[in-house]
Parts: sequence; C-alpha cells; structure tokens
Amino acid sequence: MNVAVLSGGVGGARFVQGLLDTVDPSGVTVIANVGDDLDVFGLHVSPDVDTLLYTLGGVADEDRGWGRAGETWAALDVARGLGADAWFQLGDKDLGLHLARAQALERGEPLSAITERFARALGIPARILTATDDRLRTWIQVEGGELPFQEWFVRERHEPEVLGVRFEGAEAATPSPGVLDALSDADLIAIAPSNPFVSIGPILAVEQIRAVIAERNVPAVAVSPLIGGRAVKGPADRMLKRLKGGTGPFQVTQCYEGLIDALVYDESDGEVELDVRPLVTRTLMSDAAGRRRVAETALEAAAALR
Amino acid sequence: MNVAVLSGGVGGARFVQGLLDTVDPSGVTVIANVGDDLDVFGLHVSPDVDTLLYTLGGVADEDRGWGRAGETWAALDVARGLGADAWFQLGDKDLGLHLARAQALERGEPLSAITERFARALGIPARILTATDDRLRTWIQVEGGELPFQEWFVRERHEPEVLGVRFEGAEAATPSPGVLDALSDADLIAIAPSNPFVSIGPILAVEQIRAVIAERNVPAVAVSPLIGGRAVKGPADRMLKRLKGGTGPFQVTQCYEGLIDALVYDESDGEVELDVRPLVTRTLMSDAAGRRRVAETALEAAAALR
Repeated sequence: MNVAVLSGGVGGARFVQGLLDTVDPSGVTVIANVGDDLDVFGLHVSPDVDTLLYTLGGVADEDRGWGRAGETWAALDVARGLGADAWFQLGDKDLGLHLARAQALERGEPLSAITERFARALGIPARILTATDDRLRTWIQVEGGELPFQEWFVRERHEPEVLGVRFEGAEAATPSPGVLDALSDADLIAIAPSNPFVSIGPILAVEQIRAVIAERNVPAVAVSPLIGGRAVKGPADRMLKRLKGGTGPFQVTQCYEGLIDALVYDESDGEVELDVRPLVTRTLMSDAAGRRRVAETALEAAAALR
Repeated sequence: MNVAVLSGGVGGARFVQGLLDTVDPSGVTVIANVGDDLDVFGLHVSPDVDTLLYTLGGVADEDRGWGRAGETWAALDVARGLGADAWFQLGDKDLGLHLARAQALERGEPLSAITERFARALGIPARILTATDDRLRTWIQVEGGELPFQEWFVRERHEPEVLGVRFEGAEAATPSPGVLDALSDADLIAIAPSNPFVSIGPILAVEQIRAVIAERNVPAVAVSPLIGGRAVKGPADRMLKRLKGGTGPFQVTQCYEGLIDALVYDESDGEVELDVRPLVTRTLMSDAAGRRRVAETALEAAAALR
C-alpha cells in the first residue's frame, strides 16, 4: 500500500508516526512544506522538514515541541555575546544538520535529495521529499505590509492578525523529483493535520502538485488540525476564523476544495454537514495509540471510498 | 607609545600578549593576516584573526594550541553523522563566532570593523585590524598544482613540499581602514614571530602596507619564529630551507629585506652576520615572563635604533 502524505511540522510528523506504525513504512512518502524555510546566519534552515526528520528519526525534543532532544546552546550563546541578532533559536546539534545541508547545497545537491539522504542517515523507514527544490517562500500579509513567515511566526510570536498569505516563487516552482510519481502511485493521498494555510498551502501552491491531486483516481483524505474549534498548537484556528469565517470542520474542507474526498475530524467538533465524507474520532495524538487511531481512521476512510 | 604589529596566529598572539603586558595596550594595533581565511559550510572563517581574538581575549585553548577552551563538538558530530565533509575542525563556541561574523558580513559590515568589534566584546585592550577587507587568499604551490592554504595546512597536514606561495587578490587589495594610519603613527613597527611566508607574507603582499613600511621613519623590528633552526610550531623551518636556502636568522631577514632594522632571535641560533641589528635573547614564549622578555627585547631594539 502506497501512501503520499502532505505535511507540515509537528502535527504532520505525529500523523506520519502513526501511519508508519500502521502500514508498511516503505510505501510511505512524505511531501514536506518548504514555505517556511529561511536563511539564518547564511545557513538554509527548513523548519518543517527538520521537525519531520527529528520526530521520525526519534531525536526530537517532544516536550519543547521543536528542535532536538539533549540540545545544547554554546554556539548561539557566543554569537549573542558578540552582538548577533539571534531571534531564531538554533541549538548546536540542530546547527550540525544546517551545516551539513549548507555544504551539500553548495555542492549542488538538491534540497529534496539532501532531505532523503538525511532521512536515511537518521534511520527513517519512509521517504521524505521536499515539495519543491525551487525557492518558495511564505509571506504573511498583515496590517501595513508583509512579513516573511518565520519573522511573523517566531519573532512576532504570530500575534499580528493575518490578512492573507502569499507564496513567493510558487508560479515558477516545479515539484521535486519523485513527488509527482509518489502522488500518482499512491493508493491514498493524505493531508496531515497541519495548518491548511501556511503548512499545506505552500505545497498545494505548486501548480503541478495541486493538479495531480485534483485529477486523482484514488481517495484523498485530510485530517483536521482542530480539536473543539481550536488548533492544538499554532495559529490555524485564528487564521481559519479570519480567512474562512469559522473554526469548524467545514472551514477546513473549504481549504481543500476539490482536493479531498473525506475529512477526519475530532468528536468534539460535533456533527456537521460536509461536501466530503466525514470521519469522526478522537484526533489528539499525544501518544502512540492516539497517533495510530488517527492514521487508522484515515486508512478506513480511504478503504470505504475505494 | 604606539606600536603596530604585523601578526599571524599563535606565535603572533603570544608576542602581542607580551607586548600588552609591557606597554600601554591602548597604543597597540595588531594588523592581522587574512590570507588563510576560508569558507567552511558557507561561513567565513579567519583562523589567524580568531586565534588572536581567543588568545588575547583569554578564552583560547592553550594546550591544544588552537580554538577555544572548554569547547564542545555537538554540531560537527551531527554534521559528520549526516555525511558532511568536516575536515576543518569547528567547535560549537567557535561556530558561534563564525555565525555572528556571517550575519555581520551579510549586513555589509567590513571584516576589519567586525574584528575590532569582536575584540572589544572579548575585552581585548588593543586594537585588532585585518590587513585588508578585500578578498586575499594564500595558495600553496606544490608538485603538480596549487592548494588553498588551509587545505594544504589542515587537510594535507602541511606535508606536501612548498614550491612557492601565491596571494590571490593581493594586487587589488587595499589596507583596511585604520591600517595605514596605525603604521604611520607607530613609534615602532613590529613583525611578530609568525611564519614569514604564509602569516606575514600575505600582509606585506598588500602593496600600500609594504610601501608605508618600506618608507618608515621609525624602527621596524622583526622577531624570528625559529629556535635552533626549527619552527616552534608549523612549517616555517621547512619553507625557509626550501625557499631561502637555510633556517637561520639570516634567512628570516631575507624575507623582510628593506622592511626591518633589527631582528630579535633566539640564542640557540648562534652568532650570525646580518644586514640588520641583531638582538639575541631566549625567544620561547611558553609563559608570561618569556612573552614579556621577547616584547621587551623588541622595544629595546627600537630604543637603540631611535
């Protein structure tokens, strides 16, 4: 069974963990968001990709919710002492990955190939691909202007109200090698419970990816990132309210119009009328059993639709 | 009293330490070699400048002879585990400085200004300037081709025989702001006991620096890096033998023809005929007393010449 998963960071990584516990991992391809990539100290950082690598590689700091377990901060402490503007947290181990990536990029290795290679080095049994190797950057439109995603998210603590989202470079971006094949060969296309606007949105902004999903012959199932109308983490609820007029399952399906056949959502979000098949379960993925339950529900939805 | 010191890494830093213990540090300007600068993982590294900063800032690892005391290696370990080619050692704290420098360079701050700023942040009472803010790189000519300095020095452990040295970018390089003034205002121009070819050579390859030293009105004193015909550290002896035909004080003066009035050298190198005033002492700088002795001898030489 082949599954292609569109994924952002933490929520997506947990969903993929559940999936890898449920199906043969060798059939799973993760298509990761790169819209929140940024340059820090001249190093290319891919926060969502790295969260996937660390979580699936078993080296993530689960308590903190980002970065690596057992992390140290010697480099950043020194940089700050020398006057550096260090608003983006980079631990020493995390830096090690960014250094290896910087060297590989400099040698001309595409981001997707680097990501696949790092996933193998971390012992991850699934394939992780970046949505695109082209430059694609998410900009957040706020009162009075635009902010690069991470400046809005980290530096401004995603406080400024979001008026819209723009994906710089999306028109010209082509899918990374392997992405279209993974979608075409999939028995199930899954959209992880990530932020529809800034985690899944940038992936779907790559026209060829959107087109192949729109023209799919297999079930596509999304998992809502909401529990009781609230995001488990991050600003998805505020963005849904502002940009789609509400924070229920219906508004989530609106983000994926024409692209999904079913939505898995939490029982706390009640019974609602949807244009796609609803699957209600408990979607909190705080432990392995919870993660498996969500993955199994998505697989059941696909089986029922087939 | 103003002293301008041309300096490479370890030996130069020790000489400057002795000088700062002997004269008013506020009158001391160090003009540092940048010929061995390199890009590692996309970060600009200035090994000689950093050795000066760490040694004079009191944070150097004196036993190892390079890098910082209490260093950790988390980043490099991770990078290696991900397949990075990590032949150049970068500790986590050291990386912190390179990150801060990378950010400052990206913002357009010149290398010399960054260096001065870092020296202040490290509490160094003297001024440290880079010889030039322009790109100047030392290439080592070996059998069958050329190697960038650090690849020859670190990766090849300076084993390949040196047939010559080339300073890429030297013709176009201009002195950093403050360098010519420091040389013109100096009561003494000192050349530290660094490698004449690859530590001092790149500084003198900047034409305006060489010219202002050649036309000096004040004493210029070099300190030989040899003890008993051998370099305390590094390949200076082998290079002197190959490129100047011997490893004595005379060959050292040949490297600085027309640029010095006196040479301080070690008593183990015997009595030799020189075209400049010889000053014989014990030049090993393994402790503070030794460092002061060498600095004082250079100052005495200058006083005698005045």
